[in-house]
Amino acid sequence: MSDVISGIARGDAAFSHRKIVLAARPQGMPKLSDFELVTSQLPAPAPGQCLVRGLYLSLDPYMRGRMDDRKSYAESVQVGQAMIGQVVGRVVASQHPGLQPGDPVVGDLGWQELAVVPAEALTRVDPGQESLSTALGILGMTGLTAYFGLLHVCQPQAGETVVISGAAGAVGSTVGQLAKIKGCRVVGVTGSQTKARYLKEQMGFDEALVWGSEPSGPDRLAAHCPDGIDVYFDNLGGAVTDAVVTLLNLKARVAVCGQSSQYNLDRAEQGPRWLRNLIIKRARIQGFLVWDFVSQHPQALRQLQDWLRSGKLRNREHVVEGIENAPRAFIEMLEGRHLGKYLVKLSPE
Amino acid sequence: MSDVISGIARGDAAFSHRKIVLAARPQGMPKLSDFELVTSQLPAPAPGQCLVRGLYLSLDPYMRGRMDDRKSYAESVQVGQAMIGQVVGRVVASQHPGLQPGDPVVGDLGWQELAVVPAEALTRVDPGQESLSTALGILGMTGLTAYFGLLHVCQPQAGETVVISGAAGAVGSTVGQLAKIKGCRVVGVTGSQTKARYLKEQMGFDEALVWGSEPSGPDRLAAHCPDGIDVYFDNLGGAVTDAVVTLLNLKARVAVCGQSSQYNLDRAEQGPRWLRNLIIKRARIQGFLVWDFVSQHPQALRQLQDWLRSGKLRNREHVVEGIENAPRAFIEMLEGRHLGKYLVKLSPE
Repeated sequence: MSDVISGIARGDAAFSHRKIVLAARPQGMPKLSDFELVTSQLPAPAPGQCLVRGLYLSLDPYMRGRMDDRKSYAESVQVGQAMIGQVVGRVVASQHPGLQPGDPVVGDLGWQELAVVPAEALTRVDPGQESLSTALGILGMTGLTAYFGLLHVCQPQAGETVVISGAAGAVGSTVGQLAKIKGCRVVGVTGSQTKARYLKEQMGFDEALVWGSEPSGPDRLAAHCPDGIDVYFDNLGGAVTDAVVTLLNLKARVAVCGQSSQYNLDRAEQGPRWLRNLIIKRARIQGFLVWDFVSQHPQALRQLQDWLRSGKLRNREHVVEGIENAPRAFIEMLEGRHLGKYLVKLSPE
Repeated sequence: MSDVISGIARGDAAFSHRKIVLAARPQGMPKLSDFELVTSQLPAPAPGQCLVRGLYLSLDPYMRGRMDDRKSYAESVQVGQAMIGQVVGRVVASQHPGLQPGDPVVGDLGWQELAVVPAEALTRVDPGQESLSTALGILGMTGLTAYFGLLHVCQPQAGETVVISGAAGAVGSTVGQLAKIKGCRVVGVTGSQTKARYLKEQMGFDEALVWGSEPSGPDRLAAHCPDGIDVYFDNLGGAVTDAVVTLLNLKARVAVCGQSSQYNLDRAEQGPRWLRNLIIKRARIQGFLVWDFVSQHPQALRQLQDWLRSGKLRNREHVVEGIENAPRAFIEMLEGRHLGKYLVKLSPE
């Protein structure tokens, strides 16, 4: 990195770094060959821009959707372009008065070691955070997604039953902890016994249900929710969601955060039609994105930080080293074989 | 009816009248043999009760659901019981100080010519209404369902595109008129050219689309909604709803009022899973019942009456004479071969 700094001092036009580009649009689950590690040149920052060195890259299920060439809430990644993703890093060189070298920042810098971006695209991170990596997780997009999806969209009340699909993911396990803070009974649906134990023993869930391929899933879910379901935070979709809908209570609230069971399908899966149950239960289903609540992010972050410091919220990270390992790590993340927030360490703190 | 009154004067214990009972639970579309016309005896009203003579019985799609023996928002009709339904009528004899003989009232009196019910179960109808039948339709449950489902659940804004399925039904055609009052562009989806013409020529819809069995429905709907869909009022469900979901705009609102395409199915139909689109569009789907808004019914009725009197709202009724014809009329109503609010006239006004 000292090369970079001395390069800027010399007024060099370009810095070499490594990044991961989309090599091919995946069919179903991504393969390693859908990605390519390339070495690329970056220009020196122009006025208003900063050069940022990445420390951690966040890996999240939504990235799978961006690899497809179809309309969504954001642009697709084009073949040959760097994969998109949030990165926390430090400013190396700044051509903007608001940011100084050394400042910790977070932004959509993509799967790359260095980035040159407008200062406006960066958010300064509170340097008082225990670890900068939390700015991507529990004190970043992950925590904010859980916070707004659960607390604003679903408005859980003490004593209500909250069910979470994809519960052992970074967002899901945070949602469960927030629901416990609000006095709810929390039931997680997850994919393995290891994850179920993690949710109950480490994340404070009341119940955790392993959803397998056997047909007993709906009955077992019903057994775990003897008072019905008041709030459902859906990361997964598919058969789990179908089962939840049949158990909704009057005036139930459903937040649709993700549909990861569907992301690797070439065409929409078929499932039973259940809208009639929404009438019977006068239930509400709402899709949301964390960016819908940008103006309220600062106060939410303060609240999350308070809960983290006081031990009411626990943070767990799964860290892989090196940008070259990001594709493998991403596939692992989609396969759900980890616990906690999945991060790629791009360079030493 | 003079027999009834003199019977009461004599203190007789019972009055003879006709009613329709559920004879068998229908499989799919109800048949005439699923109903039976019976002559039955009614006791004289006890203290707190009234004897009411029915004038009009309302026929509505929700009644089909009550004929099945499955959990819903209300009790099923039991075999041998009178079919449930709203009736507008006049008090014949009252054992409650709040109601006098001759008072027009509305209540869940069922498919029968006379009823003895607690006065609390009756709502007095404004005698100033042009026709008492409107208390079942545009100034009753039909109008209130349209009013709260559209205006409260969906909150349409001027210039937005509102799509209505089952648009030529009593509720649907009222929803479209209310959306026009609010300055929206209104597209109805309906089942025949006759109904489409009715919606455009008599109910003021901007567009009306005939949805048939050909696969072009989704494309034709898209062509009718060049700016996407902001509000969807769903009476129907099924393939129409699937097509609408793909066209929803950012922050779209969907009110689920009915799912009449599904009511005559023995088991849930399969359809494409589309919850992911709710995330992309941050859209909301809400089931509702008119009874969720009871405290606001009086002010809504005043507003509906103003619009009706000023000609901003049009009312259309389809009236069949005689309780004995209610089963045939009900099947016709479910088949959707009528225009406007379907009523059975039980006795002369």
